Amino acid sequence: MKGIAPLLCCCALSLLTLPALAADQDVIQFREAVMKTLNEQSAALGQIASGVIPDDNLVTHMDEIALAASAALKAFTPKVPGGEAKPAVWANWADFSKRMADFAQQTAAGAKIAREQGKDAALVQLINYADSCKACHDMYRQEKSSDTN
Amino acid sequence: MKGIAPLLCCCALSLLTLPALAADQDVIQFREAVMKTLNEQSAALGQIASGVIPDDNLVTHMDEIALAASAALKAFTPKVPGGEAKPAVWANWADFSKRMADFAQQTAAGAKIAREQGKDAALVQLINYADSCKACHDMYRQEKSSDTN
Repeated sequence: MKGIAPLLCCCALSLLTLPALAADQDVIQFREAVMKTLNEQSAALGQIASGVIPDDNLVTHMDEIALAASAALKAFTPKVPGGEAKPAVWANWADFSKRMADFAQQTAAGAKIAREQGKDAALVQLINYADSCKACHDMYRQEKSSDTN
Repeated sequence: MKGIAPLLCCCALSLLTLPALAADQDVIQFREAVMKTLNEQSAALGQIASGVIPDDNLVTHMDEIALAASAALKAFTPKVPGGEAKPAVWANWADFSKRMADFAQQTAAGAKIAREQGKDAALVQLINYADSCKACHDMYRQEKSSDTN
């Protein structure tokens, strides 16, 4: 698959490396891509929730965050400290992985609620996301830059 | 819905504003969240394609980019130049919106291919994403920072 890597450069050039150089940095970059996706979709949903952006695509954005959440734990399974992840992630793996699984469940439920019950009910569920995000970040994240939240 | 906005602060504090202050900046921030999601998922897929990250969640990531692509055009419908979007987006709206619709179709097809035909076939489709990304960015995007691609 090496051959096609250069062709993906438009969006991901800085993150591509050859398989032979697979290293901890790749693992860190990958999980940062996953967590930044969650961050961007949280931001988008926050704007919809606060009413500054129309809710036309509410279900789509709730599906997006649910999908991202469903894949997030996998990105942390390699025990590679670094980036903004505290070593506590792996020291307290049972707790961390339960939180991530709960988050995936909450976001999946939120997407279902948005689809079946509409915006108001979905936004109540969003409050739970917020609590989950904050509680987990407080324990397991050490923020290193100002451009992520 | 204003009341719950502060509770979403864990992930999106910097992007929340009150509805009364809804302004062009909100529109720009929202579409940047959408495009950064595409960027992060492109990066993740690039790493999977190049083999440095296992392909366990390939289908999930292809679903994520397809969902993000499906909602992307909507984020550009308000005619609000700024951020990294060139005014050409709105000057050439018919072309831009066709490109975005094609991109949404390609990514949806890619997710289906990943699900039904597996990794190798999906990665061929990824090459098309790359071409679409680059062609559209060349015409409609003026990069302003080094942290997005």
